[in-house]
Amino acid sequence: MRTQVVIIGAGPSGLLLSQLLHLNGIDCVVLERKSADYVLSRIRAGVLEQGMVDMLERAGLGQRMHEIGLPHDGFRLAVGETALRIDLKRLTGRSVMVYGQTEVTRDLMQAHAARGAQVIYEAEAVTPLDFDGDQPRVTYVQDGVTREIACDFICGCDGYHGVARASVPKGAITDYEKVYPFGWLGILAHVPPVDHELIYANHPRGFALASMRSHSLSRYYIQVPLDTPLEAWPDAAIWDELKRRLGEEAAARMTTGPSIEKSIAPLRSFVAEPLRFGRLFLAGDAGHIVPPTGAKGLNLAASDIHYLSEGLIEVYREKSEAGIDAYSARALARIWKAERFSWWMTRLLHRFPEEGAFDARMQQAEMDYLAGSQAAQTSLAENYAGLPY
Amino acid sequence: MRTQVVIIGAGPSGLLLSQLLHLNGIDCVVLERKSADYVLSRIRAGVLEQGMVDMLERAGLGQRMHEIGLPHDGFRLAVGETALRIDLKRLTGRSVMVYGQTEVTRDLMQAHAARGAQVIYEAEAVTPLDFDGDQPRVTYVQDGVTREIACDFICGCDGYHGVARASVPKGAITDYEKVYPFGWLGILAHVPPVDHELIYANHPRGFALASMRSHSLSRYYIQVPLDTPLEAWPDAAIWDELKRRLGEEAAARMTTGPSIEKSIAPLRSFVAEPLRFGRLFLAGDAGHIVPPTGAKGLNLAASDIHYLSEGLIEVYREKSEAGIDAYSARALARIWKAERFSWWMTRLLHRFPEEGAFDARMQQAEMDYLAGSQAAQTSLAENYAGLPY
Repeated sequence: MRTQVVIIGAGPSGLLLSQLLHLNGIDCVVLERKSADYVLSRIRAGVLEQGMVDMLERAGLGQRMHEIGLPHDGFRLAVGETALRIDLKRLTGRSVMVYGQTEVTRDLMQAHAARGAQVIYEAEAVTPLDFDGDQPRVTYVQDGVTREIACDFICGCDGYHGVARASVPKGAITDYEKVYPFGWLGILAHVPPVDHELIYANHPRGFALASMRSHSLSRYYIQVPLDTPLEAWPDAAIWDELKRRLGEEAAARMTTGPSIEKSIAPLRSFVAEPLRFGRLFLAGDAGHIVPPTGAKGLNLAASDIHYLSEGLIEVYREKSEAGIDAYSARALARIWKAERFSWWMTRLLHRFPEEGAFDARMQQAEMDYLAGSQAAQTSLAENYAGLPY
Repeated sequence: MRTQVVIIGAGPSGLLLSQLLHLNGIDCVVLERKSADYVLSRIRAGVLEQGMVDMLERAGLGQRMHEIGLPHDGFRLAVGETALRIDLKRLTGRSVMVYGQTEVTRDLMQAHAARGAQVIYEAEAVTPLDFDGDQPRVTYVQDGVTREIACDFICGCDGYHGVARASVPKGAITDYEKVYPFGWLGILAHVPPVDHELIYANHPRGFALASMRSHSLSRYYIQVPLDTPLEAWPDAAIWDELKRRLGEEAAARMTTGPSIEKSIAPLRSFVAEPLRFGRLFLAGDAGHIVPPTGAKGLNLAASDIHYLSEGLIEVYREKSEAGIDAYSARALARIWKAERFSWWMTRLLHRFPEEGAFDARMQQAEMDYLAGSQAAQTSLAENYAGLPY
């Protein structure tokens, strides 16, 4: 088999890239290790920047998002005794869209199915080969048979644990990493959200976030030590802890109910440099991870795909490699700024076990300064709403 | 002897307070452990915020400052390959004034001498007493004789190592502290400054600052490990290091010369809470220390004196204790924000031995974000030019 671009990974990055390339007349094949159902079952981020909303619209995927997505003009922050609403719309002229990653993926899957696109699920032993030359290929195993696709380019959209980055020779890649000394315990429940906007709180007992997927589906998180077993947190204990950390006013309004999903995720900052190795490109989590604070992960994947799709379209349309040559640097410039923002917001909102009373006061001072400064609020808002592509 | 207010410490805080109280008809005595010459020989900060400039004018001390002080509308920052001028004037409408702490102290001393104010130098064993009741007093030893001053209030403007804070019962005070793992090696030389504005640089070899006291007197600093002996740094080595860290362009313009002062100072963040204990108040370094990055120390002392003098004037003029009751909280609100800013700027500009490649990238990302964001530059500028009193 031969195609122009092989995309490894059928998550939102891979499918969005495939969709954009298809709309520009470029053939591609998407290879996914897991089943479609498994991909859809992953509960992930749900706050889209305007830039990503615009991209989805351009890719013909705006209809359902605008029907059921929830535009948010702001969010709430609380650190200690200081509470503040960040008015994204007033400060930046932009909003964000609450629309789950699962929904984005579902829309992309339907678009692919509708046009009979080649998305090969349950492809085992996917292996990118010869990407240092001009005849790259990818092998994989399906139904026990090894198959090969010859192509012009390989795009690794296969996440942090994926094969794409792992295929790059060790000396060619530099990893930057920071692991945080806590995790997020998340709970999903069929209850109306406590507020129509997100609430991020730094309480002496730790971080809490009240989020949602829809008017009837809530997503809450609390900071927990990394070694916490999930069994230590029955639903009732999570709800009690959320009420404590989010404060009396929120507690009084909070509707509780049985969890339909519950998990603990570690927090990590990670960047691999560069994002291009000959004819192999990395995009999204394959190249970088942010802690979830500020919801930058999916949005960064979208900006990678923006730069990468532009570069690839330029190759076929204009016979110019300028765009793909610039891809790694363009994407990384935005990635590092989002890494900085996620790190800053993580530091502002969590209790760090190794830090002392002075550091807690620095968090409070940061928050009190924010509460009184238009410039500081604008800086936070422009990062949260998304820096320009 | 009896007076209304005893001020401990004849540095800029103590003398400015004394001057403001005098102008409002309040009697005070200033007690200083050292000689006037010793006080004047201390080389300290030299960048005054607009708020402090305004205070000095109101205190009748503006003339010489405006004659020989250097108004600065901006400063330069360099982190790695990214350089940026922060245009304070454009971003905030305000400037800062380069005018050495020594000059401020000299002006204050002259004003005190001109009116025959009571400033007692070389007062030994100064001891604040009975400040938990309404008849406080201060004892001290002069020429071998113990003397006592009865007063209404005692103001501790005697610095970090002073007796005022040390006199407070341990349980009544909470200390917050952070010690940084490096120091600043400073050099003063009779050479013209390398630039008409300050240059702060974060170089892979460490922080450097090009500053000045006048058009012919330069003040430079480099980050050094805390255990560095001064002898390890002959003048020539310091100039070489400055040229490396400040970059080729600055190096080409730099005039070098013999040092007339050279010293290594540790960097520390420190806040004591509260700043009032009955009829004893702490102001300036007696209550808090900032690292020198961003030049907030002297300016914070000035805002303390602003709040404290207002409170004391209110006591005598309006028989109201509202101002002194609010002093600690008002001063601390501004102090914590300046502590945050000094900590942030210190983190941005220094190499931390315990930090790794990810943290260095966070500094670069912070700088690259700053370079592209009006909001972030405004936030930096409003802190550097001074938050409102």
